[in-house]
Amino acid sequence: MAKYIGGDLGGTNVRAGIVDTETGVVTNLISVPTIAREGQEAVLHRMADLFLNVIKSSGHKVEDIGGVGIGAPGSIDIENGRTIFLPNLYGHWENAPVADKIKEYTGLKTYLLNDVRAITFGEWKFGAGRGARTMAVYAIGTGIGGGMVIDNQLHLGLDGTAGEVGHTMIDYNGPLCGCGNHGCLEMYASSPAIAAAGLKAVVQGWTTKIGELAGYDLNKITAKTVSTAALMGDPVAREIYEKVGFYLGIAISNTILTIAPDKIVIGGGGVQAGDLLLEPIRKTIKERVKMANVDKISVVPAELGDNGGVIGSALWAYQRNQA
Amino acid sequence: MAKYIGGDLGGTNVRAGIVDTETGVVTNLISVPTIAREGQEAVLHRMADLFLNVIKSSGHKVEDIGGVGIGAPGSIDIENGRTIFLPNLYGHWENAPVADKIKEYTGLKTYLLNDVRAITFGEWKFGAGRGARTMAVYAIGTGIGGGMVIDNQLHLGLDGTAGEVGHTMIDYNGPLCGCGNHGCLEMYASSPAIAAAGLKAVVQGWTTKIGELAGYDLNKITAKTVSTAALMGDPVAREIYEKVGFYLGIAISNTILTIAPDKIVIGGGGVQAGDLLLEPIRKTIKERVKMANVDKISVVPAELGDNGGVIGSALWAYQRNQA
Repeated sequence: MAKYIGGDLGGTNVRAGIVDTETGVVTNLISVPTIAREGQEAVLHRMADLFLNVIKSSGHKVEDIGGVGIGAPGSIDIENGRTIFLPNLYGHWENAPVADKIKEYTGLKTYLLNDVRAITFGEWKFGAGRGARTMAVYAIGTGIGGGMVIDNQLHLGLDGTAGEVGHTMIDYNGPLCGCGNHGCLEMYASSPAIAAAGLKAVVQGWTTKIGELAGYDLNKITAKTVSTAALMGDPVAREIYEKVGFYLGIAISNTILTIAPDKIVIGGGGVQAGDLLLEPIRKTIKERVKMANVDKISVVPAELGDNGGVIGSALWAYQRNQA
Repeated sequence: MAKYIGGDLGGTNVRAGIVDTETGVVTNLISVPTIAREGQEAVLHRMADLFLNVIKSSGHKVEDIGGVGIGAPGSIDIENGRTIFLPNLYGHWENAPVADKIKEYTGLKTYLLNDVRAITFGEWKFGAGRGARTMAVYAIGTGIGGGMVIDNQLHLGLDGTAGEVGHTMIDYNGPLCGCGNHGCLEMYASSPAIAAAGLKAVVQGWTTKIGELAGYDLNKITAKTVSTAALMGDPVAREIYEKVGFYLGIAISNTILTIAPDKIVIGGGGVQAGDLLLEPIRKTIKERVKMANVDKISVVPAELGDNGGVIGSALWAYQRNQA
């Protein structure tokens, strides 16, 4: 039974726990604020302290733990354990030697991975992706991240960038994305895109529960407001999710035609809408994919929630440590 | 040194040769007309005779040959060596037991594979894809086929359908495709799409060499006419290739963001335009892919020409026979 620490470095919080790599069970989970504005060195020390506290709280010693895996929100130099570019984390994280520093501060062997690739690995081994030979994850949040398992291997690709599905184009002439490209999926189906569609409906004066749920304060309309309204049966909110599911279905159709997976896992906050989102995705791929038998492809919600990244990054450390 | 027969079943011709699986060298290549209108049984007998003639012409005996691999234009049940659906081959090829019949008629162990997946395998081992860890092939012809090598393995996916890049969408609202979907790449960048753009220019009365090259007979305008005019410096034909390269670049950008390859190989008849096609592809992926370092990704023409499929299907038979 190998015990590893799984860590998830987010813009708001850093989470970590001890993961049993044979069962996927997480214990001694602790979350602390990232406070990225204090700078890289402060964040690295806070992460190191967090990992040591997790071990302490479990009654283990550092020597009992195989290592730590850290999922980080951006592109990663996997071989050298450095961050290349973390667009959503305040401060200077270009070429930051995260693995070396954490190892220095804790004595733990440290391995880095993109956060959604970590979720992908976790969901595949112990979550909604169990048993899939080839699968893709779409994680819907502020952006849309993704990950690929191909022929029973987590596939990372050049610089670990395989799975950047949020920036695949569904319309080459579409709106400008923050990345500099046009027509990226993120512009149609991320949480901010859902919130913006809800806001627009309220501003246009449509009869919808979205405004009421936000106390008629436009600042308070989020994707969660829209999904809550949709789950209450609000037709305007439902229409928004129909459309969002359609856009996701287009991008997922392209993924299916490219890698021919047997499973698609939808994760991130966006999945709280459940079948309101999954059904239009399923309908769209059925309509759009003619060259593969989509009846054999299941589209399912992620199962591990916030623990997916923690589990996956621990599994990653375990796999890298074996190699 | 293992010798296998590589066969390529096309709508017009069936080609076969002996492939040295260690060097990729093809000898005793013979091509015969498919004559698909005579029906499945006649075609299967013609293929069997072809394979036996190839062996005979080489001075070998059937026992000297490890087996035969056949690339076929459509979806394949790889495990059972049956064709599922060959849209471009006349007659009834649904669930045809090709491998069993060829084995019965020749005594050769027989393995089936999609034709562009065979080209992909050949180009990766002995052609333009040598040394790539992860790569995608786009083969531009009547349709646009493709194939994927992921982490040093030919990736086939569910029912062998991975690589159907011609039916990935570059605009979800785009024109209707023969497959029933809208906005498929094939509608923008296949040989018929190139020919149609050339024809339109002539009909609209633009000053272009395309009409002259076709003797002002619209029936004679093909993609080859347009590429010949473009290579002669004709600005209208060049503009067509610029645009086709752009559309291909959009779809290839999506492939890059999905699997993060280190190489993209462009094959099929479409590649005869050379850099006239490759340069706009390179320019487009540079403009459209912001989440990966495209400077590390090479976009190169296929090197094996018509032999790619023969080599790849022989390699496939060799690999399957070892398994």
